[in-house]
Amino acid sequence: MSEMTRVALDAMGGDNAPGEMIKGAVEAVQKRKDIKVLLTGREEVLRQGLSAYTYPREQIEIVNASEVIETAEPPVAAIRSKKDSSIVVALKLVKRGEADAFVSAGNSGAVLAGGQILVGKIKGVERAPLAPLIPTAKGAALLIDCGANVDARPSHLVQFAQMGSIYMEHIVGRKNPKVGIVNIGAEEEKGNALVKETFPLLKACRNINFVGSVEARDIPSGAVDVVVCEAFVGNVILKLYEGVGGTLIRKVKDGMMTSLRSKVGALLVKPALKATLKDFDASEYGGAPLLGLKGLVVKTHGNSTSTEVCTSIIQCVTFREQQISGKIQEAIQAAGE
Amino acid sequence: MSEMTRVALDAMGGDNAPGEMIKGAVEAVQKRKDIKVLLTGREEVLRQGLSAYTYPREQIEIVNASEVIETAEPPVAAIRSKKDSSIVVALKLVKRGEADAFVSAGNSGAVLAGGQILVGKIKGVERAPLAPLIPTAKGAALLIDCGANVDARPSHLVQFAQMGSIYMEHIVGRKNPKVGIVNIGAEEEKGNALVKETFPLLKACRNINFVGSVEARDIPSGAVDVVVCEAFVGNVILKLYEGVGGTLIRKVKDGMMTSLRSKVGALLVKPALKATLKDFDASEYGGAPLLGLKGLVVKTHGNSTSTEVCTSIIQCVTFREQQISGKIQEAIQAAGE
Repeated sequence: MSEMTRVALDAMGGDNAPGEMIKGAVEAVQKRKDIKVLLTGREEVLRQGLSAYTYPREQIEIVNASEVIETAEPPVAAIRSKKDSSIVVALKLVKRGEADAFVSAGNSGAVLAGGQILVGKIKGVERAPLAPLIPTAKGAALLIDCGANVDARPSHLVQFAQMGSIYMEHIVGRKNPKVGIVNIGAEEEKGNALVKETFPLLKACRNINFVGSVEARDIPSGAVDVVVCEAFVGNVILKLYEGVGGTLIRKVKDGMMTSLRSKVGALLVKPALKATLKDFDASEYGGAPLLGLKGLVVKTHGNSTSTEVCTSIIQCVTFREQQISGKIQEAIQAAGE
Repeated sequence: MSEMTRVALDAMGGDNAPGEMIKGAVEAVQKRKDIKVLLTGREEVLRQGLSAYTYPREQIEIVNASEVIETAEPPVAAIRSKKDSSIVVALKLVKRGEADAFVSAGNSGAVLAGGQILVGKIKGVERAPLAPLIPTAKGAALLIDCGANVDARPSHLVQFAQMGSIYMEHIVGRKNPKVGIVNIGAEEEKGNALVKETFPLLKACRNINFVGSVEARDIPSGAVDVVVCEAFVGNVILKLYEGVGGTLIRKVKDGMMTSLRSKVGALLVKPALKATLKDFDASEYGGAPLLGLKGLVVKTHGNSTSTEVCTSIIQCVTFREQQISGKIQEAIQAAGE
């Protein structure tokens, strides 16, 4: 029997907090007996919200936190000054070992900075990358790094490749995942200074399946499983995915409304199309882990609803059971020797 | 009456050369009386190809070039060694003032390097950026730079913003075009070192309409008209646009084929959808200009067909008539004073 996975949930973070956070927590414990959710936030608000649901009471606990870090606040300053915020209180639960993981839809910068400052990095890990799953024609790929750390060094990218491979293999179940570095051409001599310096290091790396450069054009078709890049480029890829997808789907919908003929057709294709486009919806994959920390920190979209919150909470179980942090520590130490 | 615009066309470059190049040249001169195309390539091959068409003979001239630079050849070395290649011969026509513009679907690196080496940059221009138009919900935006020059400096990006504004205003007809710098957040303090240094310079720039940072998510909806970034990021944006669009359209098509109901619907929506998606097809915009040179150099897609070649040739007329190179020179000089 596996033990309980204890997940601290920032009940006050995100556009739909606290309503959808509470609902997501309830859905998670209704689905799984091996999860305990520690809801951090204003006790009276959360107690009130929970009273609307029927759920196994012993699986949700409220941990009071009187402050809230708003979306626009400068992250590091907020982490330092708002010591009784839902984010800081939750991260301290992870730090003290009272929770295995932290899930938040709140201020991204505060979650990323707080994770590094309060939970701390695994020994040997230089930077903690944010690694969301992005949809591809073959399922999903891990995009690493999309975090707030810009101007990365080659050694960072090598560690991203190693951590990303471990995640894809043990959490997503992709055997011997293919690792590619984002580049502007397929040849080894192409690229900017960072990519040119990183390429031979990745080639020499024995614990990953490095397949070389990947052009952005080939990411959506699923050419590689782990897409390695520095955070600025990662951020551009993640957000452009969303932007092109959204604009194109709107255009498809508008296009179907241009004539009576096409309107009738639209009614007929709608159910099939909806199912197809769901495959290409990043929110189905839950949150993005901040890898390389001593505990698990998961950032979900700011506009997350209960479904995404629930998925993110359940992901934490696999992460703990597979001992991802331990595997990362071993890989980084082995590479350093 | 406007005079003739003389366009040198690399008849041997691209996946569909020489067939589609010859056809594109014929289409252009059939449409416009004010264009003369100078086809560079193997004379006997081109003469043979042209013999299949009826067109005003005085508007197409063959300029013999015995060599071809292949797609995979190292660009600079190829430009230096293959002096009788279709690319080098055409660029020299521009350099000597015997042609106003050069259009090629061939080896990108060779076209970009050759343009800078043989045609030469306008005085004061530090780098010549490649600036394709990308589709947006509001028409098109200019993505500048997507070229081969990586690791740009802030002063380069400022010039890209100025040159891009001139192009959008005078060629595309977008009045007072909005300029944004690609960033990972909307706030001025966000970004990598390059963006942070460039931001205040753009803000201080009087001859552009700088609106601040643009997140990649907002590019497809048409938030800005001129999208400024260094070439590595530009390349990622351009190719991901293509990749996400292609994968999504394939998924939409496959989704429509999943049931009898949706197949019937697909037949009904097809014509409307086709028209809509055409708006989002980059090849409709013709080629991308390499800005800041003493003559016009246009790079079209490697897989260009006659339609794109013809559009690219016709674009050259506006470029010459609007005296874009002169306007760029004035703007760069004014900024330097």
